[in-house]
Order: sequence, then structure tokens, then C-alpha cells
Amino acid sequence: MSRPTVAVVGLGQMGGSLAAALTKRRLARVIGITRRAATARRALRLRICAEAGTDLAAVARADVAVLATPVRTLLRQIPDVLPRLRPRAALTDLGSTKREILALVHRLKPRATFVGGHPMAGSERAGLDGCDPDLYEGRPWFLIPAVIVHPQAVHTLAELVKGVGALPVWMDDPAEHDLAVARISHVPYLLAYALAPQPPEALRAAANSFRDATRVALSDVDMVLDFLLTNRRAIARAARELQGRFRALTRLVAAGDEARLRRLLEEARSRRAQLQ
Amino acid sequence: MSRPTVAVVGLGQMGGSLAAALTKRRLARVIGITRRAATARRALRLRICAEAGTDLAAVARADVAVLATPVRTLLRQIPDVLPRLRPRAALTDLGSTKREILALVHRLKPRATFVGGHPMAGSERAGLDGCDPDLYEGRPWFLIPAVIVHPQAVHTLAELVKGVGALPVWMDDPAEHDLAVARISHVPYLLAYALAPQPPEALRAAANSFRDATRVALSDVDMVLDFLLTNRRAIARAARELQGRFRALTRLVAAGDEARLRRLLEEARSRRAQLQ
Repeated sequence: MSRPTVAVVGLGQMGGSLAAALTKRRLARVIGITRRAATARRALRLRICAEAGTDLAAVARADVAVLATPVRTLLRQIPDVLPRLRPRAALTDLGSTKREILALVHRLKPRATFVGGHPMAGSERAGLDGCDPDLYEGRPWFLIPAVIVHPQAVHTLAELVKGVGALPVWMDDPAEHDLAVARISHVPYLLAYALAPQPPEALRAAANSFRDATRVALSDVDMVLDFLLTNRRAIARAARELQGRFRALTRLVAAGDEARLRRLLEEARSRRAQLQ
Repeated sequence: MSRPTVAVVGLGQMGGSLAAALTKRRLARVIGITRRAATARRALRLRICAEAGTDLAAVARADVAVLATPVRTLLRQIPDVLPRLRPRAALTDLGSTKREILALVHRLKPRATFVGGHPMAGSERAGLDGCDPDLYEGRPWFLIPAVIVHPQAVHTLAELVKGVGALPVWMDDPAEHDLAVARISHVPYLLAYALAPQPPEALRAAANSFRDATRVALSDVDMVLDFLLTNRRAIARAARELQGRFRALTRLVAAGDEARLRRLLEEARSRRAQLQ
């Protein structure tokens, strides 16, 4: 199979960027499927799809179908999409949380392959306006197989992920994934929302560090509600961990305990330095 | 007075960048004063000072003297520097906290002008390696007059601040300044240190948002200890505020209260959007 057919359902920033990357790198023939006809026409004008429309039935022609909609929309779409697929095809998604999705897929006992996916990419720019064929370049992309009917389909999907420049990170346990993203992404989002409301006299002092720490608070609220409300258990645990470490730091500051404070700061600094 | 003489004491990232900005924009004749002779020689090689040395006595020749050392070093240097200045000169500093410094200056009853300063600039790159003549471009620069002996000296200082591209923000109350920076800078630093230590499986998922939220944890630990330990009261207050807002958010997530959570996220989003 030289050029697979990929159906991308949802042409927001994530789906649009994937369609653009696959089309511009000639990795696949892309069928874009979207709710609004105007978005489909715009995707064709942008030349990020070979064809585009509003009918979900087109997934039947795909070797790989990608659901690029918010998590709670995914939970409604998956039961509709899975039975339409060819058995040799693979279905994947780009949702930010995986436990509820994989539990649903297991309940559905599908006859096509399903691999949960989650690329760690995206910015606060929503929709096709934020579409970027290089969005996935160098980014981790979680892949969590749920049901493997046809191993070749998993291979095809992984090649596409690598083809758009992302780094596949294979995982078995969706709960482990959800805890990792709660720690590294969802709790930082909540901190950004907690930091952002400051009185005007404090905002006058806003330096780059404040802008960096609060940038994700500019994100699309619906998207954020979606991952927060489908990851409640892991977020509660990650938030407790964060609060414990924050309280330890503020107590040492209040006590003026320079030696212990220095030790915690240096430890955190060296952990952060490992990232790059 | 066409080109004032400015003595910059301390040639780390902040002082070195100020020396470079003043020299390269021909705003002043800069005398660099630093602890290590090697740093003075390097500053001369980089052509960021007209002269450079290790003797604090050179401040006597300055129209404006700038102390660009960490806050707790400032508290030791100010009693030594103030009596050496000409009465028509102004002394300022670049320290991140202002309450302790202004209290000290008032106790010393100086015969030269003192204006507390704090430019909201700097990156995690320490020393002359992080020196950048454009570091202050477009950045807020707090100015808090403590003792005005000669009003022209305040004017000269303000012109230099504007000359290097910064935006002067005048304030009367150093406690108000310290609370503003606790909210906008010191608490975000503590959050970065609290976020950075993550297990390896979570760090594999680190996206740009995590890098942004934890970048300041790469800063020089001595500099950070300095502002944390001279701003304990304001940090305690700002930390309580932050914890209250964070807990409110995590409770709504745990309860799955979408309507109230949406309201808080949208409010925070619109507050952050005002920043730009």
C-alpha cells in the first residue's frame, strides 16, 4: 500500500493541521469530514484535503480514520463510526484523555482496529486559523492500542504519525496516560486560570514569565472543559501532589529556611534542566 | 548635561545589559564596577563600558549610580555607596523587592537622591553570557522615589530608563510594589518549582505548555533565594490568594460542575486576554 486513504473527522486546529501535514508531505490521500459545509469548502481552498464534505459515511473508504473532535464529542461519534469501517482499517483519535474512550471501545467489541492517540501539540489558536502542517514536528504522540484486528493497520498508523514528524510514545494503560497528562498539562492549565485574574496594579508588572505561565488560559474553553471533565480522578491526584509541593515551598519561604529552600529549588532546577 | 556618567555596580545579566544599552545607544559614559577583575576586563573587551574596574570609590564620579547586584548584597552595599555620592547624583538599584531596601535608605538619611528601581526583565541566562543591549526594550521598569535631594537627578535617571527602551512605572509605596511582584512573579516562580519535579513517564508527555510553565525554574538559584527571602510577607499573601483560586477550580472539576467551571475559565481567559 503506497499512499493510504486517511479520513480526518473534524477540521479544527488539530485535524486541520494533520490533514495539511499528510497532504503537503504526500503521505496520504486525505478525506476531510466536518460538520459545516463552509469549513469543508475552506479546507479544499487551502488544499489540505483531496476531498472534503460533511458525510461521516466517507470513513468506509479509509485505511485509517482519525477522529479529531473534542473528547466528549468523540464519545458520541465512536459508536457511529466504528461499524462503518473496513475490518482491515484502523480508527484512532486525537483526544486529550484516554481512559473513558478506551473503556467505551472495549464495550463496543469492534471488528476494526482501534488505537487511542494523543499528540502533545496545539496552541491557543483554535480552528483552521491555527492550522499548521508542522504542528506535530518533534512532538510526542501517545499511541495506546485497544483492539488489534489487523496488525498491519497499526503499522500504517504509526508510519503516518512518524511521517508528520511526531515521536510515537507507546503505552498500554490509558489510566497511566491520563495521570501523566493531568500532571504535565491539565494541572498547569488550572494553575494558569488561577494565576490569570490579578488586580490591574499587579498586571502592570507582568513580565514574560507571567505571560508564559498563563498563556494556556487563552485556550478555547470548550476544549479545556472537555479534557478537565473527562479526567477528574487523575486531576484530583495530580492537584494534590502539586499543592503538597507548593505548600512545602511556601512554608520554607515563610520560615526563612534558606538551606532547605535552596535544596528544593536546586533539585527542581536539575529536574527541569533534563527536559532541555 | 548632555551625556551623564553612569556607574553600574555589578555586571551580571541585568547590569551588563544596562551598561551595554547605555553605551551602544550613546546615552551615557559608563563606568563598570565589579567584584572580579576578569569580569571588568571582559566588559571592556565587549565594549559595553568606557571604563571598568573593581573599586567602588569610582561611584563618586557618577551622575547616576546603579546597583545591579542581588537584593541581599544591595542591603550591604547601600550604606557603603550612599556617602560616596555627590549630592547632585542619584543612586538607584535593580533589585526585585523594594520594601527592605527603601526602609534601609530612610534609616540612613542620605544626602544624595535615592530612587528604588526594578525593571521587569531578565531571563534564565545568568552573567555577561545573558547580556543583551535590548533586554529592557518595551519592559515595565518600576521607579519608587525614597529621598529626593536634587529633582534634576530623578529626571536624568528617568530619561535613561526611557532611553534604553523601558516603560517607567512610578510608585509611591514599596509594599504595594512587593505585593504586585509576589503575585505576578514570585508565586509563579514557586509554582514552576512545584511543577518541575515529575516522574519520567509524565515528563515524556511534556509539551510546550509545560516547558513554558516551568522555564523560570532554570533561573540562578541564588538570585531567586534573594527575592523570595526578602519578600516573605507579600509572598505568603499572594500564595494564599493563588491557593484559594486553585482549590475553587479543582473542586469544580471534581464535582463535574460544568456551568460554574466554565464561568471561572471564561473570566480568567478574558482577564489574560487584556494582557495582549
